[in-house]
Amino acid sequence: MNKNNLETILIKIFKKKGLNANHAKICSNALINAEQVGAYGHGLSRLKMYCDRIEKKLINPRPNIRIKKISQSITCIDANNSIGFVAADIAIKKAIQNAKKTGIGLVAIKNSGHYGLSGYYAEQAVKKNLITMIYTNAPPAVAPYGSSKSLFGTNPICFGTPSGSKIPFILDTSISMINRGKIRVAARNNKKIPVGVALDKFGNPTTDAKKALQGVQLPIAGFRGSGLAWMVDILSGVLTGSNHAGRVKDPFDNFSGPQNIGHLFITFKTNLFVKNFNSRIKENIKIIKKLPKIRGVKKIMYPGENKYIRYKMNSKKEIKISQIIKKDLEILK
Amino acid sequence: MNKNNLETILIKIFKKKGLNANHAKICSNALINAEQVGAYGHGLSRLKMYCDRIEKKLINPRPNIRIKKISQSITCIDANNSIGFVAADIAIKKAIQNAKKTGIGLVAIKNSGHYGLSGYYAEQAVKKNLITMIYTNAPPAVAPYGSSKSLFGTNPICFGTPSGSKIPFILDTSISMINRGKIRVAARNNKKIPVGVALDKFGNPTTDAKKALQGVQLPIAGFRGSGLAWMVDILSGVLTGSNHAGRVKDPFDNFSGPQNIGHLFITFKTNLFVKNFNSRIKENIKIIKKLPKIRGVKKIMYPGENKYIRYKMNSKKEIKISQIIKKDLEILK
Repeated sequence: MNKNNLETILIKIFKKKGLNANHAKICSNALINAEQVGAYGHGLSRLKMYCDRIEKKLINPRPNIRIKKISQSITCIDANNSIGFVAADIAIKKAIQNAKKTGIGLVAIKNSGHYGLSGYYAEQAVKKNLITMIYTNAPPAVAPYGSSKSLFGTNPICFGTPSGSKIPFILDTSISMINRGKIRVAARNNKKIPVGVALDKFGNPTTDAKKALQGVQLPIAGFRGSGLAWMVDILSGVLTGSNHAGRVKDPFDNFSGPQNIGHLFITFKTNLFVKNFNSRIKENIKIIKKLPKIRGVKKIMYPGENKYIRYKMNSKKEIKISQIIKKDLEILK
Repeated sequence: MNKNNLETILIKIFKKKGLNANHAKICSNALINAEQVGAYGHGLSRLKMYCDRIEKKLINPRPNIRIKKISQSITCIDANNSIGFVAADIAIKKAIQNAKKTGIGLVAIKNSGHYGLSGYYAEQAVKKNLITMIYTNAPPAVAPYGSSKSLFGTNPICFGTPSGSKIPFILDTSISMINRGKIRVAARNNKKIPVGVALDKFGNPTTDAKKALQGVQLPIAGFRGSGLAWMVDILSGVLTGSNHAGRVKDPFDNFSGPQNIGHLFITFKTNLFVKNFNSRIKENIKIIKKLPKIRGVKKIMYPGENKYIRYKMNSKKEIKISQIIKKDLEILK
């Protein structure tokens, strides 16, 4: 489908659900971006879920978002159960503003929901020539090290920086072996998932996406990955006043209340300590790209490069809509 | 050896090398702490190396450390090739001061050297009831994803927070499968290292610590771990004005110049967004500790807990000094 047509449909759907025109546009942009970068688990596959949650009054289509200034650098946002995209859009803009003013910005959000890709917000800060670190928690998916029960979300760690070229350096990595979104897409399409990324509910290895969703995802690097997930839960949940310790509800399965997810945005200027950051990072990347490669590797890529290339390619093409999504759009619009 | 006796010897050694009494004490404290927490790769096994580098004028025993205030929150430190412990001690104190004053602190150091354990500095901030994130780069040890050559250091990611109990939550994890310090200790003691943590210089898996030191260490989680290492190199190297992209010299093997390592310290208050952080984090930890355990696990531990227990146990005992270290101390004192 043509991007503009899809946008028109999405905006119509969100407006029908009660969002104002501006918020509907923010949501539509985020979903289309996810499709275009190939992060299908964060794109249209979630549209029906968002609509269901608005319908059930678990996402507030007309939120009264409160922005509290703590200092010139620090801001606290209560999202009032807005859809995550809208809260995160306000927050990253505030974090950019604060960093531009004082060198560093710290913005916390509580009472928010799933906001899609952290990297999407990181890009906005990087475009304004800032470094950014973004944390969000998520519903239980990964078992803490030593436990047999899921509690941590896939809790992504996101870091973005200008790269000295037009392709931003955006590391956006969940601490699970695989993104939950990817398992979800596999489950919806009856596809298998790789070996070694998840256990079923009995603790046995599985490649069945549906069984994996009922079971436990494995963290990267054992105790280390578990520790990183815990860090993200503390930064985005405990610190911000949001749900934490496994209390963030799964947006697809649990309609017993709003998610109350927390996000934390840190931003700072690149020229605080050196005058030539852009040429320094450019040199850094150049040196690493020139290293000898292992067999079969043509190019050493930095985080975000692949996604950017996918985006550029996809943005010239029509957006592919699966049969399931087509049905969702028909029903919702 | 009795702790006080060891301290006397260490201070004597550092003073003999030209450090002032205060700096000698800071170095001695850091080394003894590393021994007591069981991080032998960051303890006395490095003493001779530090002394050699002072001798060769690669570490400046009488540095003129310049502290530049960028704002109430942000400080830039030029360590003038001081021993890393001294620069980091000043930096964490400054980062604590800034956060206490404005809610958030950001301190960068350039022209520094190896400073031991990041967690040691994190503890200081946590004791002052702050959350902290600390980054440092290190000599080449880990190959970027896709490359056959080491370039990233083991570049630790460190995160500390008050835990609501007397044992601080300190995640201090290198992004390599194993700490380089541990490989060094194994090499000095002719012990083997585990399978799957390193390759020899020909790219073959090895359990020989000496061969591993000449080869490549493996990052955690492939592209993800490589990306995290890259992030740390950018934050502590590129941003601060320090060496980066593999230019940090190995302190044991490379005497062609100072290391010019960079460090970055971020600190912030726990009560910026919630009033009851301590009870919230206490509850978070309690819930996670109560999860069902996998077979063979008695207790779910949070990062830093094990180290604290080791420290408490070891601080009641004499400090064990190996034959090699005994010889070092005899020669140096």
